[in-house]
Amino acid sequence: MAVYTDISEDELVAFLGEYPVGTLLSYKGIAEGTENSNFLLHTSDSAFILTLYERRVETSDLPFFLGLMEHLSQKGISCPLPVKRNDGELIGQIAGRPAALITFLEGMWMRNPTVQHCRQVGEALAQMHIAAEDFPLQRQNALSPEGWGRLWDGCRNRADEVMPGLAKEAGKDFDEIVGQWPSDLPSGVIHADLFPDNVFFLNGKLSGVIDFYFACNDLLAYDIATCLNAWCFEKDASYNLTKGAALLAGYQSVRPLQDAELEALPLLCRGSAIRFMLTRLYDWLTIPDGPLIKKRDPLEYLRRMRFHRQIRSASEYGVGLA
Amino acid sequence: MAVYTDISEDELVAFLGEYPVGTLLSYKGIAEGTENSNFLLHTSDSAFILTLYERRVETSDLPFFLGLMEHLSQKGISCPLPVKRNDGELIGQIAGRPAALITFLEGMWMRNPTVQHCRQVGEALAQMHIAAEDFPLQRQNALSPEGWGRLWDGCRNRADEVMPGLAKEAGKDFDEIVGQWPSDLPSGVIHADLFPDNVFFLNGKLSGVIDFYFACNDLLAYDIATCLNAWCFEKDASYNLTKGAALLAGYQSVRPLQDAELEALPLLCRGSAIRFMLTRLYDWLTIPDGPLIKKRDPLEYLRRMRFHRQIRSASEYGVGLA
Repeated sequence: MAVYTDISEDELVAFLGEYPVGTLLSYKGIAEGTENSNFLLHTSDSAFILTLYERRVETSDLPFFLGLMEHLSQKGISCPLPVKRNDGELIGQIAGRPAALITFLEGMWMRNPTVQHCRQVGEALAQMHIAAEDFPLQRQNALSPEGWGRLWDGCRNRADEVMPGLAKEAGKDFDEIVGQWPSDLPSGVIHADLFPDNVFFLNGKLSGVIDFYFACNDLLAYDIATCLNAWCFEKDASYNLTKGAALLAGYQSVRPLQDAELEALPLLCRGSAIRFMLTRLYDWLTIPDGPLIKKRDPLEYLRRMRFHRQIRSASEYGVGLA
Repeated sequence: MAVYTDISEDELVAFLGEYPVGTLLSYKGIAEGTENSNFLLHTSDSAFILTLYERRVETSDLPFFLGLMEHLSQKGISCPLPVKRNDGELIGQIAGRPAALITFLEGMWMRNPTVQHCRQVGEALAQMHIAAEDFPLQRQNALSPEGWGRLWDGCRNRADEVMPGLAKEAGKDFDEIVGQWPSDLPSGVIHADLFPDNVFFLNGKLSGVIDFYFACNDLLAYDIATCLNAWCFEKDASYNLTKGAALLAGYQSVRPLQDAELEALPLLCRGSAIRFMLTRLYDWLTIPDGPLIKKRDPLEYLRRMRFHRQIRSASEYGVGLA
């Protein structure tokens, strides 16, 4: 939950004076997102999300993130549309922080996604990959193998505090994964964080995708690997083959995967699992505890790493089953 | 900020099935309130607040709180209206917690209230006092002198951890205030927590009052004392006489104060200040620290206690000046 920076009505009215959005009726800090401060605004025209970008976001990345949302929206992808200021800019400033106003998307994220949700997520992911093909800006993935290496260096000495043996087990995996990491697969703009809380549904239909603040250029199939990790494991850490098959079939109904992508899928899944294990581990070891802090368990992703380690081919994820 | 309990779309749709509010479009946990979990809902009909009552709220008090909101709303006070379920009940249940759905009030709370805001708060407070005169339910103030005593017993031994000398200074004040506490002043239903974050304004006009979860039967003038403490001190702890005069004049324009109430005002202000000092002190000493925890400084209210201690008559608060 996240409101790191509070804002006053005076500041907000002044900020909104630069936008063609009617008059302010209310604003509430919302408990979503972990990196930025987010407010839900009602104006006489509509509802909006105001995001204040906090320290962990590089200001120089904002044109990529906001431009991508605009680009995807223009291509018919249902995602928030950044509202242009009267001077044409997408980025304003409030309370000393860069900030953007984006349209509010109705819809709910699924705490308990079903097979049908997984299929639609696969379709939407492929649609985004295609829609972003001609997006002109580029952004390196800060959480590619090189970035994992920095995280791992920062916490491998303390990993065993979380679970005895973790340093050795994850270290071996890390070396294997990074050593074999592919570079010759189709690449493009990926969402890179398409977890259930970033996908909205209304009446069972996918109604929107949000939170493009990890989006970057990377291997397209790596985005699928992240979705398999995020959507297709049950709370007991077991892989739900039916959900995986549906997600993959949904994706391939829009953009069929090349053989090389399918062959690489187990390794990409391992890489995605270690990426989330590492960011969670890093937060676990460095963020102080508190009663309202819900730190996510890195071991959830260690269990995924173990699962993927024993996979021999993409068919074990359900390719071709649905 | 407060979302202690998350809810799933399934649970929420089932819960809303009991209410005549249209179909659910979205819900967001909001970072307001400190005792309960609050969600802002959009439905096909309108916007609502869903409140899940957490442990610190006594379920047996809910009919008083919700009934009062209904009563005040029917009397023309702009406050949230609890929505009745199809079976006529005001209280439902979700995620194992008692919960209520209330109408969403547009408006913003003032981080930097002006003299004009203070005047309107005074008026609204008096209007509420009058509108609640025939409210049939009763609730004892859990934070009357008896309640302060329990808080003080629970933290006096550790008070000097916050400021050396606090135990002695506050102990002396405590004894003086409790020893002289009046009982023969006009009483009725008071809001008891009418801080700026509980009063909304739109275009400079008071548009609503929220958060009746401390409301109770007590001395009406004690509610004024709390408003003076909450609205009329600047960030440097100085009393703003112009704001105080406006708040009091606003109140008296609707319900003139009796001489006995005016005479008691300095003591009531001291009592209200020690009440908030004590709850803040208790939280300060008992709630663990955390990066997202903003505990409120008890010493802010010690400074108010010191100010009120040297007041000799209500005129020093600005009675008769505006």
